[in-house]
Amino acid sequence: MNYIKRTHTCGELREKNIGEKITLNGWVDVRRDLGGVIFIDLRDRYGITQIVFEPHYNETAHNNAKDVRSEWVLSVTGTVRKRPEGTENPELETGLIDVMIDEITILNKAITPPFQIQDELDANEDLRLKYRYLDLRRKPMQKNLLLRHKMYQIVRNYFDKNSFVEIETPFLMKSTPEGARDFLVPSRIHKGHFYALPQSPQTYKQLLMVSGFDRYFQIVKCFRDEDLRADRQYEFTQIDVEMSFVDEENVFEMMEGLMKELFLQTSNFNLQTPFLRLSYKEAMETYGSDKPDLRFELKMTSLNELLKTSGFKVFSDTINKGGTVSGLNAVGCGNYTRNQLDVLTDYVKKLGAGGLIWIRVTDNGLDSPTMKFLSDEEKQSITKALNAKPGDLLLLISGEWKKALTIMGNLRLEMARRMELLKNNSEPKLLWITDFPLFEYSEADKRLVAMHHPFTSPKDSDIELMETEPQKVHAKAYDLVMNGNEIAGGSIRIFSPELQSKMFTALGLSKEEAEEKFGFLMNAFKYGAPPHGGIAFGFDRMVMLFAGESSIREVIAFPKTSSGLSLMDGSPSAASEEQLKELHIKVKGGD
Amino acid sequence: MNYIKRTHTCGELREKNIGEKITLNGWVDVRRDLGGVIFIDLRDRYGITQIVFEPHYNETAHNNAKDVRSEWVLSVTGTVRKRPEGTENPELETGLIDVMIDEITILNKAITPPFQIQDELDANEDLRLKYRYLDLRRKPMQKNLLLRHKMYQIVRNYFDKNSFVEIETPFLMKSTPEGARDFLVPSRIHKGHFYALPQSPQTYKQLLMVSGFDRYFQIVKCFRDEDLRADRQYEFTQIDVEMSFVDEENVFEMMEGLMKELFLQTSNFNLQTPFLRLSYKEAMETYGSDKPDLRFELKMTSLNELLKTSGFKVFSDTINKGGTVSGLNAVGCGNYTRNQLDVLTDYVKKLGAGGLIWIRVTDNGLDSPTMKFLSDEEKQSITKALNAKPGDLLLLISGEWKKALTIMGNLRLEMARRMELLKNNSEPKLLWITDFPLFEYSEADKRLVAMHHPFTSPKDSDIELMETEPQKVHAKAYDLVMNGNEIAGGSIRIFSPELQSKMFTALGLSKEEAEEKFGFLMNAFKYGAPPHGGIAFGFDRMVMLFAGESSIREVIAFPKTSSGLSLMDGSPSAASEEQLKELHIKVKGGD
Repeated sequence: MNYIKRTHTCGELREKNIGEKITLNGWVDVRRDLGGVIFIDLRDRYGITQIVFEPHYNETAHNNAKDVRSEWVLSVTGTVRKRPEGTENPELETGLIDVMIDEITILNKAITPPFQIQDELDANEDLRLKYRYLDLRRKPMQKNLLLRHKMYQIVRNYFDKNSFVEIETPFLMKSTPEGARDFLVPSRIHKGHFYALPQSPQTYKQLLMVSGFDRYFQIVKCFRDEDLRADRQYEFTQIDVEMSFVDEENVFEMMEGLMKELFLQTSNFNLQTPFLRLSYKEAMETYGSDKPDLRFELKMTSLNELLKTSGFKVFSDTINKGGTVSGLNAVGCGNYTRNQLDVLTDYVKKLGAGGLIWIRVTDNGLDSPTMKFLSDEEKQSITKALNAKPGDLLLLISGEWKKALTIMGNLRLEMARRMELLKNNSEPKLLWITDFPLFEYSEADKRLVAMHHPFTSPKDSDIELMETEPQKVHAKAYDLVMNGNEIAGGSIRIFSPELQSKMFTALGLSKEEAEEKFGFLMNAFKYGAPPHGGIAFGFDRMVMLFAGESSIREVIAFPKTSSGLSLMDGSPSAASEEQLKELHIKVKGGD
Repeated sequence: MNYIKRTHTCGELREKNIGEKITLNGWVDVRRDLGGVIFIDLRDRYGITQIVFEPHYNETAHNNAKDVRSEWVLSVTGTVRKRPEGTENPELETGLIDVMIDEITILNKAITPPFQIQDELDANEDLRLKYRYLDLRRKPMQKNLLLRHKMYQIVRNYFDKNSFVEIETPFLMKSTPEGARDFLVPSRIHKGHFYALPQSPQTYKQLLMVSGFDRYFQIVKCFRDEDLRADRQYEFTQIDVEMSFVDEENVFEMMEGLMKELFLQTSNFNLQTPFLRLSYKEAMETYGSDKPDLRFELKMTSLNELLKTSGFKVFSDTINKGGTVSGLNAVGCGNYTRNQLDVLTDYVKKLGAGGLIWIRVTDNGLDSPTMKFLSDEEKQSITKALNAKPGDLLLLISGEWKKALTIMGNLRLEMARRMELLKNNSEPKLLWITDFPLFEYSEADKRLVAMHHPFTSPKDSDIELMETEPQKVHAKAYDLVMNGNEIAGGSIRIFSPELQSKMFTALGLSKEEAEEKFGFLMNAFKYGAPPHGGIAFGFDRMVMLFAGESSIREVIAFPKTSSGLSLMDGSPSAASEEQLKELHIKVKGGD
């Protein structure tokens, strides 16, 4: 098809171009016919320019423009003019000019889209996903993907500048079922054998350290066959990083530099470094979460010391069995009604709490159904510990350490919402969570599992506990938290083959299983592995947070639904008999 | 483990550091014990530094260094000194200094590697692949991957600078068996259904043009379940590009800029643009290849005009049936012996030629067993057409157009090798091949198939031939050729739903099949698709050529063997019953 190529984009023309003969290519955003004069807002990725068809200026062009409708694709040639006084549009960057059209070519027509191409849309998400190519025409989606583009470049330039080497690792790898479920890929050549798609390039990046690449990074797709949630997809993008001859602080410093650069270049915000470091224990006890949102205070306080000898057995028994009593002062909420307090009680009960103890602090003392169980001294020390003043509401939860703190952490977030503590213009808050436990007990597997992954190094001082009291061992593991979201996690790795064996033993892997699954990695460590460590960022979630969105699907070009469907192309779909035969597999009958 | 972190890398110290107390971390490259003084070349990715243990300088350190062996990992602290006169090593960047060691920590030991970590290696490739993490310690491999790293950054910075948007497309997509074989991924949630890994993001990038992203790029893994060759892997990396409102010349110009940048930044070579453009027909007739190596001349010449009325029926019949007679002048090879000529004849016969006609040009005329069949006039016109002089050897092949030219193209390369036409310092030669046929006949499928792919636009002037003489239709398709290798291929796409339907019809796809396979794309085109086109580079092959390697496995960190095995981790491997059960598949019995 012959047509005139654009001389400018639709976002480019300014007053300095007045009088120039130019050509634009783009989509019809809006068309208005005002008393015989046709105005079209012509749109492309770069902006919108108003083009004008006047019968007296060019009758042929005007005639040809009569049938044009929204979303048609045009090539137009004409002369830039200053807009008549009073018709300027200050909201457009091109709003001081328009273009008088001499020639129009219709490059493509468009049928009526299933929803309007506009910023605010109330179409349901399934319709948007089915017609994703139209949804992506909308400015908010274009903005999100352009931000994502920018973040890729910032990340890579940062690592390149800091001597990291970008290395691609395989997508067809060995299935090592430890952790999440693998996606399998049947082999045609090797009957009955399967590749797995990577859950992460973990083993490869450690091998690259053994190879001496020293600093590695990659922005890479990873895959987990797990049930999906709002911020999960089967395939997700990770910024994957590994460094040799480092400890935790070296990793922190390098990644803080990255975050600083991202904030500076995307929003001109100067992030203060170093970030706060909180141990897992501190974070749990103070914020009831290993990904606390520090954009507001509202700290929790452990009341264990005060109450461990209390005559109120609910408290003292809990504490003496290793549990905890945690308190929170909801400043100024002392006027909560009984009804409001019942709602809060229901809230924590739904999360599994036995109950909620509330204390309204009044000018006349403490008002609470529970107060009768406590001594005056205890009442006083609680109000003191929680820094309570008349008008405040104190909330107490007791129970098993992690469970009670987690529930209290949720209540903290709920109270922050009710108290409107999170301001719209609040600055981003990033922090490191450190000193995670190396193991956690899995109810499902009835055994210890690695809290991070089986390559994570224990703290040097805890190594001796690995065989005797493994649950007390802390790990050189860390998470990076931004505004209450975990955006990255990593660890210093085990680099001694002996310690790695000890780790596998603690995880209940037999020598044979360990050899079968990770033998090549343990073998590699025998040939001179350097101390190393790394981190991986959940890139989708990071972009989501930077874009101010609440679902990662808003920052992924072609996401799948929560049941893993692509509504646009209908995948997954049935395979042909021929395909299955070549792969030596068949679909099983029955359910 | 506590150890002192490096203050410098092993490639960093210079004379200006003399006297400084520094720490290095690295691997023992070579260890020499010279009369009680121990010298170690300590290695990391950045270089090598000689460290010295003298008993009189520091006895403890010297003692601790006695057991150290190759590939052990050390942390050493000491003082930089000027090397004693006469012991400088000009081959090392650090060769004017060494470091007197006060303190050594052995970070890790190493067992003896299966091969030496050295530049030249005669280990077989399987051993190298099994111990890839050691193979990657070798400098040539590190150099290749560092070059690859650099090329990623150059490519992305170039596209970013030119307003291209990097967008990730899905890895779990719909299987559309057209072209190569898909890798399938069974779905756990949707029983009996499968995703496919992308052979290329072709449909997605076209949809992104429909979305108005205007310029898209991505460096992305693609997958083809085809049998492997030296320059093929199941998974390969592609630079994927698409642009809106462009024709072929716009694509050429943008990609020439990229190649210019790559040569400039990797080897400081100033590539001349624009590149030569040759039509497919010209390339075949002049070089017998659609990826000609132009680093040497040695052109072929069509003798059809001269010989179509020849009395020698072998020639005239061939030409009149649509075949060709092609001639090549091997300048100065007139002294080839009968034995050498028999070898050449065997060479072309193995490629499928009926025979090779050779003519030795002597001072006494033409010496050839075939000469008796030609008239004097014909002999004269052949020598003239081939610009033959005494001492030259003329080679003629006749036969079906494509077959004969392809064989002659191979013979051209063979003669170039024999004549040593390719100089070591020859400049790179890049060119575009254009005007490919839209269709080619597939012997296997007994039907026309798309030579490029089914979204390629025919030349505007040929559209009318699509239904009547499809084999005469030329495509807006192009390849970029570098030194005889195709490094990229692309096309201007069909953007009209009607023309796309016509294309599917010509390919023998029923409306239902077309709808089933590509319905979502054709549907998208109804909502206002812009004219667009693009290209994809085979990145592995490109890096291979830039690195001067002859196998892509030399520029891939963890490649598979030609039977698709990963010798390092033993994938593909058997899946557990549990895994298969969850995926609703079973491995078929029998063969």
